[in-house]
Amino acid sequence: MVKRVAIVGAGVSGLASIKCCLEEGLEPTCFERSSDLGGLWRFTEHVEEGRASLYKSVVSNSSREMSCYPDFPFPEDYPNFVPNSLFLEYLKLYSTQFNLQRCIYFNTKVCSITKRPDFAVSGQWEVVTVTNGKQNSAIFDAVMVCTGFLTNPHLPLDSFPGILTFKGEYFHSRQYKHPDIFKDKRVLVVGMGNSGTDIAVEASHLAKKVFLSTTGGAWVISRVFDSGYPWDMIFMTRFQNMLRNLLPTPIVSWLISKKMNSWFNHVNYGVAPEDRTQLREPVLNDELPGRIITGKVFIKPSIKEVKENSVVFNNTPKEEPIDIIVFATGYTFAFPFLDESVVKVEDGQASLYKYIFPAHLPKPTLAVIGLIKPLGSMVPTGETQARWVVQVLKGATTLPPPSVMMEEVNERKKNKHSGFGLCYCKALQTDYITYIDDLLTSINAKPDLRAMLLTDPRLALSIFFGPCTPYHFRLTGPGKWEGARKAILTQWDRTVKVTKTRTIQESPSSFETLLKLFSFLALLIAVFLIFL
Amino acid sequence: MVKRVAIVGAGVSGLASIKCCLEEGLEPTCFERSSDLGGLWRFTEHVEEGRASLYKSVVSNSSREMSCYPDFPFPEDYPNFVPNSLFLEYLKLYSTQFNLQRCIYFNTKVCSITKRPDFAVSGQWEVVTVTNGKQNSAIFDAVMVCTGFLTNPHLPLDSFPGILTFKGEYFHSRQYKHPDIFKDKRVLVVGMGNSGTDIAVEASHLAKKVFLSTTGGAWVISRVFDSGYPWDMIFMTRFQNMLRNLLPTPIVSWLISKKMNSWFNHVNYGVAPEDRTQLREPVLNDELPGRIITGKVFIKPSIKEVKENSVVFNNTPKEEPIDIIVFATGYTFAFPFLDESVVKVEDGQASLYKYIFPAHLPKPTLAVIGLIKPLGSMVPTGETQARWVVQVLKGATTLPPPSVMMEEVNERKKNKHSGFGLCYCKALQTDYITYIDDLLTSINAKPDLRAMLLTDPRLALSIFFGPCTPYHFRLTGPGKWEGARKAILTQWDRTVKVTKTRTIQESPSSFETLLKLFSFLALLIAVFLIFL
Repeated sequence: MVKRVAIVGAGVSGLASIKCCLEEGLEPTCFERSSDLGGLWRFTEHVEEGRASLYKSVVSNSSREMSCYPDFPFPEDYPNFVPNSLFLEYLKLYSTQFNLQRCIYFNTKVCSITKRPDFAVSGQWEVVTVTNGKQNSAIFDAVMVCTGFLTNPHLPLDSFPGILTFKGEYFHSRQYKHPDIFKDKRVLVVGMGNSGTDIAVEASHLAKKVFLSTTGGAWVISRVFDSGYPWDMIFMTRFQNMLRNLLPTPIVSWLISKKMNSWFNHVNYGVAPEDRTQLREPVLNDELPGRIITGKVFIKPSIKEVKENSVVFNNTPKEEPIDIIVFATGYTFAFPFLDESVVKVEDGQASLYKYIFPAHLPKPTLAVIGLIKPLGSMVPTGETQARWVVQVLKGATTLPPPSVMMEEVNERKKNKHSGFGLCYCKALQTDYITYIDDLLTSINAKPDLRAMLLTDPRLALSIFFGPCTPYHFRLTGPGKWEGARKAILTQWDRTVKVTKTRTIQESPSSFETLLKLFSFLALLIAVFLIFL
Repeated sequence: MVKRVAIVGAGVSGLASIKCCLEEGLEPTCFERSSDLGGLWRFTEHVEEGRASLYKSVVSNSSREMSCYPDFPFPEDYPNFVPNSLFLEYLKLYSTQFNLQRCIYFNTKVCSITKRPDFAVSGQWEVVTVTNGKQNSAIFDAVMVCTGFLTNPHLPLDSFPGILTFKGEYFHSRQYKHPDIFKDKRVLVVGMGNSGTDIAVEASHLAKKVFLSTTGGAWVISRVFDSGYPWDMIFMTRFQNMLRNLLPTPIVSWLISKKMNSWFNHVNYGVAPEDRTQLREPVLNDELPGRIITGKVFIKPSIKEVKENSVVFNNTPKEEPIDIIVFATGYTFAFPFLDESVVKVEDGQASLYKYIFPAHLPKPTLAVIGLIKPLGSMVPTGETQARWVVQVLKGATTLPPPSVMMEEVNERKKNKHSGFGLCYCKALQTDYITYIDDLLTSINAKPDLRAMLLTDPRLALSIFFGPCTPYHFRLTGPGKWEGARKAILTQWDRTVKVTKTRTIQESPSSFETLLKLFSFLALLIAVFLIFL
């Protein structure tokens, strides 16, 4: 029986793992390499080795209501999209609320995690850590690895002929903190992911000229979606998810492309993705088209050659003078404390069943949490993974035999998309709702919508047609949260309230009143005719 | 017969006035107070007395194709919305192209413009100027005043009880140049016009907290409009203008409100205008909703009281600590060199026939150019005014008797909207297409669309349904431009080309191909059936 669990990392997923262990009576011990909790959300002025690094202006890409822990909504006065400093504050509130800090050892680096000699029977691990130079070793019944995937920069200099002759400055986006460095410079950002786009847009407020080079392009979405509602609260509904899965692919991709181009035509703006059939890796940015249309950011194709003080792009004859190059070429991931026989990362892929359990281990006592990039928020995804893992560790849920698990993993590998620099991310990307539902089903925590339609139709409709907020995941099953129903029914009120800081008397136009009056009359007549 | 024309100011309208005089054989002399041309578009690091003052980041609110001189398109590589430095460059290109500079006296301030004793007969004016301390006087047959209306800041401190006890910094938006001053400060911007909104958004990238206080609210439009086309190229068409004038007001305002709220719901974001029936004074800003939804800008109602280190807003109990207040409360205008008997500015209104000629003068030899705020671009508006004025000065067009002119002026005064700080602007604001068509008609320069539909249907349709670009105004009549037709027919190509700096092979989705195939088949069958 699993009791003692080692957790590596006290970021979003690490904290959720501690909490999920505690609520099911396990004994978690969390090792955090740095001096504080928060993981990638803890901004520091200097890059720290072995920890993700934020730039000062980072704001969450998924909205407050969509990216909280399922039983712990954000404070109501937080903005709909949370800047990094507030996000860290939220993580600290969570830690305080559930008293997680007592389980964390700070300044403690995990050096190695190895199978005990009797692993085949006990499933136990030996964890060696070092704190202030002092080594320690302890035995654990299970391990949850929560180290994320934004720590090791991917900088494929070979792909940029001539880069070594470049006399300007160049660095990986991980090094970027403040836009001041771009003042009056000619800047080239390589890679149109979220960081690359953010950096290019930010640079464009100070720089002399900014180029954003992309090979594959991307769909760009604004946080401010239809009528100003958060994009993910409109986009991520079970209803829409069903439609996207039911309709034939050509129709879905046509609809997606229509929708994406309604803000701005991605072909006319030079950013259209080469593969327009899928909504993989959309870029979240509110400003990009505004910066392009005012000539502050120029979109460019891939780089042909870097010269001493300039860059030549593919398919364009002109040489562009450049002072600074920022490589926003993404990250690779690795588990330096694990032997390859436990988890092997190959080609940006780890053979993890449901992105969590190494498929080949005879005992499922090592889990990787948060090594996934859902088209949705990381926070509830990591939390649900942790909750599921705890049920597996407790033996309440069993895994299929290794052969079945390997099959799932291999199937996923086949679907892998290739693409410069971002391949690992594409491999990690998965359909948010489908994935979480799958985990919830296996621990009997998926709400039964059909039954609910009879017992609580208002909630059922809100769950089906409304945004798939994290509260859905704690409505029922182990660790059910009593506040979930209320949180779901009031999610829109909270969303609107926080931006409505100046109230205006809503007076419907006389035409609207007329329209309503007319509809009402029509209804009356209809009722009258029916009962006649 | 008018020959010698004095022109005051070498900004957008002054340059157009020189050019219009030259092309009709008049002799213009332009007096420019500062050392260079460009007027408000010439950015300087320090505010200069008697001249409009820009902040560094200003970008034109109307698009390149909509805001050029009617016979001088912007260079094709300029962005669709032109930053101030490029706008100034364009004005210099214009000046060079038509050799205008030789008519301008720089560093020359106009001290007084007075009627000659024989004015009733000659219509002549005495213009006294001073250059490097040396006074000069000269007689002119006519005067064109092109001094604009963004020179005298309007700062009604009385409206802000307690402002004199405020210990922080406060200043008028005219003083604003760079956002650095806001770093880590709590900033309050008062007034939600274009400047106020720009400044609040810009401050929000550096400040600790930003409030934007507005009494009346406003509709906010993004430059990036439907499918990413420039807002004014979609919005400013003769077709839509006709619809707006033909349909009943309640329907028009309902449609406008629908359209404006499709980007973001203005009530939910706290910015909705109190008077939602008209599209007066929309604010152009690409970033505001994105800054509100991420909690970087807070919209607030009007100010109740200013305290030593904080501000209390109306209808909100909480006192907000503030370090800097920026009053973006607009401008007043005045003509210090003119006697009140010539033009009297009262209540933010001057009694100018068609916003140009003092209605009561016995001789129409003094014209004010550019004292108008069209919902469209200033450049072609000022140019068309100048072109019309030159025809009047030459006697080719006559004005109605003073009583009729006074009537027009008084009618306009009645429609004046009141509103804190911006009243003068509202009074100046007018319907772009209707106004210019009116001027063009009176000099026989309005294209006859009905006739054109037979002789050149492609052009006619483009003029009616397409954007009302300035080229329309020089298609025919005095000063007709040969390039106008071609410029109109290629306006969309130029617009798209400049942002398409990375080309993507356009592969219509298989569904779209199918749709097209199906439509084609249906057409074939229809034709077949008809001819059967």
